[in-house]
Amino acid sequence: MYSFKEKYSEYLSLFEKRLDEFFARLKCKPQVLDDSLKYTLESGGKRIRAVLTLAVADMLGVKTEDVADLALAIELIHAYSLIHDDLPEMDNDDFRRGRPSNHKVFGVGNALLAGDGLLNTAYAVLFEKCKEDKLYVDAAAFICGCAGVHGMIAGQSADLMCAEKGIKDEEMLDFIVSNKTGKLISAAAASPAVIAGGKYFLELRQFGEDLGKLFQLTDDVLDEEGSLATLGKSAGKDRSENKLTYVTFYGIDQCRVYADIICSKCLGILEGIEGETAFLGDLVNHVRYREG
Amino acid sequence: MYSFKEKYSEYLSLFEKRLDEFFARLKCKPQVLDDSLKYTLESGGKRIRAVLTLAVADMLGVKTEDVADLALAIELIHAYSLIHDDLPEMDNDDFRRGRPSNHKVFGVGNALLAGDGLLNTAYAVLFEKCKEDKLYVDAAAFICGCAGVHGMIAGQSADLMCAEKGIKDEEMLDFIVSNKTGKLISAAAASPAVIAGGKYFLELRQFGEDLGKLFQLTDDVLDEEGSLATLGKSAGKDRSENKLTYVTFYGIDQCRVYADIICSKCLGILEGIEGETAFLGDLVNHVRYREG
Repeated sequence: MYSFKEKYSEYLSLFEKRLDEFFARLKCKPQVLDDSLKYTLESGGKRIRAVLTLAVADMLGVKTEDVADLALAIELIHAYSLIHDDLPEMDNDDFRRGRPSNHKVFGVGNALLAGDGLLNTAYAVLFEKCKEDKLYVDAAAFICGCAGVHGMIAGQSADLMCAEKGIKDEEMLDFIVSNKTGKLISAAAASPAVIAGGKYFLELRQFGEDLGKLFQLTDDVLDEEGSLATLGKSAGKDRSENKLTYVTFYGIDQCRVYADIICSKCLGILEGIEGETAFLGDLVNHVRYREG
Repeated sequence: MYSFKEKYSEYLSLFEKRLDEFFARLKCKPQVLDDSLKYTLESGGKRIRAVLTLAVADMLGVKTEDVADLALAIELIHAYSLIHDDLPEMDNDDFRRGRPSNHKVFGVGNALLAGDGLLNTAYAVLFEKCKEDKLYVDAAAFICGCAGVHGMIAGQSADLMCAEKGIKDEEMLDFIVSNKTGKLISAAAASPAVIAGGKYFLELRQFGEDLGKLFQLTDDVLDEEGSLATLGKSAGKDRSENKLTYVTFYGIDQCRVYADIICSKCLGILEGIEGETAFLGDLVNHVRYREG
């Protein structure tokens, strides 16, 4: 009997196990580098990117072990981006996943290096797999592109620029969300398709970008409405900092309508895919109706 | 008639041409990301890593075009490390290569992203080459290891820790120099050997680490004695910040003796290599006796 919650926990456990094994082997000197590198990833989180990668692989009939390192690399990249994004000169967030941010525990210098280290380690993981499997080269190049200066980093740069200059522009908002959030989720959704020889790659890339947008929409609404207890980070922070978000641009009611539209779009893409799409469909609805 | 200076300029021009072509194609949005990403690399510098890679390839009979992207990736990684290292919470350097540091021009947030972007771009370059050439996977994995949490980043972390805690320890000094400076120079020296099928890989890796140590020794002496005009950065800064360096640990005279020993060691390694080693020998002496 299929249960979304149980299946999610199953994927999550698979990932946590892989991460624990990896971290157990990855001993860094000095100790502060080891501690700061592992701190942010060990504080849990939803691991939605990793779960997405494992679930898409299942759907496409790709073995979990053949995509486990894609999921690992993507979560390492995500963690690096959180650490650097939380730094005082960026989003200046003191809390992350209900715990003090990396730089609040280890200081800005060490947090900076922890982020650099996680990014570099993500690619070290991928290069190692590339030695065994030629398809990994294409998957890794795709992930690297999504994380890079025409992807996530471009989105972060635009986000910073808009915050500094007080820019409120719809096109810019789309650029930020599509790149900062959408690209890495799209890497998580579509990189298993590369390992599957390209099957449904374009559909899954689009699915990932849309799911990223949906995630950001609900995130912005939660930021406006949520509390520190459910979010694990400070609520209402975006508004107080006059940030360009879906909520500050469209308002909450319009965001809900927009979220429904994107939600339908995601489900529509899944309808065009042959295979067991139930979990991914439930994941879309989970992102749409989540409370934290 | 062979001339070291001319040959160096030749390698330098080859690299500059490759970099210019690459940057012309690499257009990033927003503009500030594009500008900050390119600023530090466009301010010139000795490009000793790139020159080393091209020269070793020549010595091993590997075509320049087959290692040009190794040199490019390594210089991108080097530039990222300079940008992050110059940040206020790290080495806090306001000048680099005679110009204001990246964060002095673009602000800390943008400099942080420029560094992230350069690191990510280095690996994007390598993954693209990996698609064409299986040997590039091994070379790229090696470079990534040298730059990573058991290489350059470990050295930077130890450097930061010693500065914060006022640690003065010979073993720690060796760890810092070997990792922070040595590993990436060793990547530059030995990665062409991977492309050559592993020929002299171990010798060249050792050569690179020793050359890195020599470079750091002379750098520390120059920092103590030099001026802003010849160094392009603030002189005597290490001492004033009570940093752990060869000079602050051994004193200048002992550093010169140590430099001579390492210099001989480098030349000794070259003697064991069949091929035209004249340029590399001159490069060692150039590093030993440079004035800036």
